Amino acid sequence: MLKKLILACSALSLLLPHTVTAETILFHNMNGYTLTGEPGSDAQLRRFDAVIVVDGKVAAVGSKKNVTENRSWQFDQTVDLNSKTVLPGIIDAHGHVLGLGLGLLEADLRVAESERDAVQTVTAFAANQAQSDWIIGRGWNQENWPSKRFPTRQSLDESFANQPVWLTRVDGHAGWANSAALKLAGITKDTVSPDGGDIIKDANGEPTGVLIDNAMKLLEDVIPAPSIERQQQALQLAFQHLLERGITGVHDAGVDATNIQLYQNFAQQQQLPVRIYAMIGANEPRLPELLAAGPILTPDESLTVRSVKIYADGALGSRGAALLEPYHDEPGQRGLLVTAPEQLHELYQLIIPHGFQINTHAIGDRANRIALDEFARSYQSIGGRNLRHRIEHAQVVHPDDIPRFKELNIIASMQPTHATSDKNMAEDRLGKERMEGAYAWQTFLEQGTIVAAGSDFPVELANPFFGLHAAVTRQDRDNQPAGGWYAHEAVTLEQALRTFTLDAAYASGQEQTLGSIEPGKWADFIVLDQDPFAQEPSKLWQPTVLATYVAGEAKFER
Amino acid sequence: MLKKLILACSALSLLLPHTVTAETILFHNMNGYTLTGEPGSDAQLRRFDAVIVVDGKVAAVGSKKNVTENRSWQFDQTVDLNSKTVLPGIIDAHGHVLGLGLGLLEADLRVAESERDAVQTVTAFAANQAQSDWIIGRGWNQENWPSKRFPTRQSLDESFANQPVWLTRVDGHAGWANSAALKLAGITKDTVSPDGGDIIKDANGEPTGVLIDNAMKLLEDVIPAPSIERQQQALQLAFQHLLERGITGVHDAGVDATNIQLYQNFAQQQQLPVRIYAMIGANEPRLPELLAAGPILTPDESLTVRSVKIYADGALGSRGAALLEPYHDEPGQRGLLVTAPEQLHELYQLIIPHGFQINTHAIGDRANRIALDEFARSYQSIGGRNLRHRIEHAQVVHPDDIPRFKELNIIASMQPTHATSDKNMAEDRLGKERMEGAYAWQTFLEQGTIVAAGSDFPVELANPFFGLHAAVTRQDRDNQPAGGWYAHEAVTLEQALRTFTLDAAYASGQEQTLGSIEPGKWADFIVLDQDPFAQEPSKLWQPTVLATYVAGEAKFER
Repeated sequence: MLKKLILACSALSLLLPHTVTAETILFHNMNGYTLTGEPGSDAQLRRFDAVIVVDGKVAAVGSKKNVTENRSWQFDQTVDLNSKTVLPGIIDAHGHVLGLGLGLLEADLRVAESERDAVQTVTAFAANQAQSDWIIGRGWNQENWPSKRFPTRQSLDESFANQPVWLTRVDGHAGWANSAALKLAGITKDTVSPDGGDIIKDANGEPTGVLIDNAMKLLEDVIPAPSIERQQQALQLAFQHLLERGITGVHDAGVDATNIQLYQNFAQQQQLPVRIYAMIGANEPRLPELLAAGPILTPDESLTVRSVKIYADGALGSRGAALLEPYHDEPGQRGLLVTAPEQLHELYQLIIPHGFQINTHAIGDRANRIALDEFARSYQSIGGRNLRHRIEHAQVVHPDDIPRFKELNIIASMQPTHATSDKNMAEDRLGKERMEGAYAWQTFLEQGTIVAAGSDFPVELANPFFGLHAAVTRQDRDNQPAGGWYAHEAVTLEQALRTFTLDAAYASGQEQTLGSIEPGKWADFIVLDQDPFAQEPSKLWQPTVLATYVAGEAKFER
Repeated sequence: MLKKLILACSALSLLLPHTVTAETILFHNMNGYTLTGEPGSDAQLRRFDAVIVVDGKVAAVGSKKNVTENRSWQFDQTVDLNSKTVLPGIIDAHGHVLGLGLGLLEADLRVAESERDAVQTVTAFAANQAQSDWIIGRGWNQENWPSKRFPTRQSLDESFANQPVWLTRVDGHAGWANSAALKLAGITKDTVSPDGGDIIKDANGEPTGVLIDNAMKLLEDVIPAPSIERQQQALQLAFQHLLERGITGVHDAGVDATNIQLYQNFAQQQQLPVRIYAMIGANEPRLPELLAAGPILTPDESLTVRSVKIYADGALGSRGAALLEPYHDEPGQRGLLVTAPEQLHELYQLIIPHGFQINTHAIGDRANRIALDEFARSYQSIGGRNLRHRIEHAQVVHPDDIPRFKELNIIASMQPTHATSDKNMAEDRLGKERMEGAYAWQTFLEQGTIVAAGSDFPVELANPFFGLHAAVTRQDRDNQPAGGWYAHEAVTLEQALRTFTLDAAYASGQEQTLGSIEPGKWADFIVLDQDPFAQEPSKLWQPTVLATYVAGEAKFER
């Protein structure tokens, strides 16, 4: 850690005068809200109408009279925010930045209303692509289609006889290929489904084109990797996309060594406008080397790397989530453990001695139990209770296991929009009896567990107001179902904002410098066209971001 | 902050290879205890018998089998601790390092049993001092003498007719001078007591030689300041003294700019063996400049400066503590506000915008209320609830004000040995009715307030086991009174250890790297000759420190 910190310092020291605004700025005439104090239930909501920023950090926040009267400030700039609403910059505690950016370079099928509609969208998109390129798209969800059935290669083959097409499902746990793509991957009726995956086959034993979880790898291995240039372009598109939605910090949920290097390059060139807390993907071959190199923390806190993302299981929609009891709508199937328990044990034992945080993806109740068991075993054997480990998603947790999050100091990293996106499917998969302990936000908060909120973009849309709305109403953006879906797990707007700001900062160990508009913290805040606290809950998803400030600098203005 | 961090990095980067042991070390065969997890009541006690240290930080802690079986470690060193007890390094959250060191160069009057005994001790001490020097001593306490009366200059004049003598009381809030010293200070029967101080005079109106609080300054101003060399020597003596007692970190409660510079010099030369969290004294004339320069944090975390110490009132023994109602044993006297409320307001408004923590000395219930009022006012006007402010001592707090510590996120920085040292005096000063809310450790802990424990050395002895004993038993080291003094405020040994380790680390914002023996934290720990957890409470003050490790290196071995 020591050596790394120094290297980071040295590398950046020449660039520093440009990294943050070396100015004293008065922002005034605003309708401001922030949580204040320590994360968790002790935090309090506070209002203000002026913020003084010095060298990129908050110096004072309160009424204009109060913040200006006791010191003779010399303002280099005064910014009138026209009575608009100001919130702390949103921290999305679980997203995939490169995936989002590459997605922005791909066909978007999230709004497709049927298999035919999806094929038409891809066809229109392909008209602008080189014929030699693979056609890549994502975001389809057969649950939104009249058929509710997985699509097939045949519908794609009509438009794409020779050009390979690969379209991943909205949750990233299934993909849909045409025949040309299957051929390039060598997937035939004789190909055996790999462990933790499934090649779906039709009545004749032929692949239908849909591949589940680990089977996706068979196909994705033959897709040429995006070039470094394409990755850079994708990341920059993603940064802009996030800033436009008020996101000033992202916990990037699983990156490889190349991605980290790209982030470091951006940081050194002051081209990292969104704060990145990057989790190293446990499948990165260079993981031991990256751990041995120690944490990365740039002095301007634009980039932090000191955690590892491990996949315990798959997702609920594709029945990849590992359940304790069989799926309600597919008896005999209990889901997939993407990482075997013994492998999980070895990873925990590898990671903890480096002082890194472990963020284990666990959606099903079996995966959650195994992840918790392994945390308990590690604390007992080598320690690590201090490292603020997390379970990513914590979506379906057995009621017996919920208190263990508190006992074991585990942060629940949850995505409010998943509940409202999943509501048509989750009961099918689980049956009603198992809904207790599913998407149980309020239960986690009430027992004192820190909940960090995210969107899981690009699985869901990155817009954080969709998440705030879903958390408060337990409804989709059509405000269905009436009264909210298992509404006893709804949270207040203040709680929801906390999970997207101060508590998310805690989840990356940065609550002393990020997550609220308070003296000594980086001046990360956003300006909105409307006041969520004065809004009806049903409209909480509607605010538009007018400006996004990071370290006191406008990184986006509408 | 940014600029300072970089400067610190640059200044130290050349020296780093030597700062920490670049080794992998197995410590084994020990009876280890540590708190684990987050500070506060969620922390749990954990036992272990082996610790692996890599590059000065803990990599694993547990049973020898567990910590060694899952990785193929290559140990540069293996240290057998012979089944001895190991605890985390003690953090003394309130001490005066230079004062301790200068005291080690002064006459020690703590054990004097009478005024005559004190004079004899000073006379013996002076035999080894240059005749031209002032004779300096400290530690007398007239409450321990048969007379219970303040001493007089006359008893000193018998031995020291011409050489000036200045002896401060055990609590530092009163001093005893001989006539030669008074003469040099120009203090006569005509001298008027300054605001916040008292020149005690006899029936004839002549100064008796005892000066209270602000009046001490009249005399201390004429004592030649210790030279830089003497200060360096004093600090080094103090470091050694602390390490011998198992103290690996100190929150230095009020230092001047010269002292900070000396600490920085030591840090750059890797001669700072105890971690120092230095509070800048609010009376330092260069305070605005030091604040503007931003926090200091050396990469090896040997030195941290990002807080300011403010004195709200004096002490109880000398009736300098500011009370809401008059002193029980001196009606008409309510104590002294060392810093006027309006000045306090200006200081808070100056300090918070720099993101520095405020540590306000408040002993009496009036001083505590004023300090709390000013925190509330600041949070409302400019923010700062996030900065983990502290009240130092929080000794006599009105019951109505105790919950405000929790509401306002104020850390109570308390000294367990004060209660047992004060027990003969506090009831005299306050009367029984006011004892509720006095030295109220358990009440603070039960409401969820973080309590950081210290000794207030050299006011009390630095030995932290005296503090652990006092906290658990509410008795002095003769185990008086039977059953403990207001024993409902006693704490468990586990709670007491927490306040001296993990919670003290929280109080300096360093709980992610200090305060427990856990992966990723600095390997600061101590080896004892006996197990406090297996010891009768009455003997908790008895352990002897056999070795003190800081960042995995033995800085002291008996």
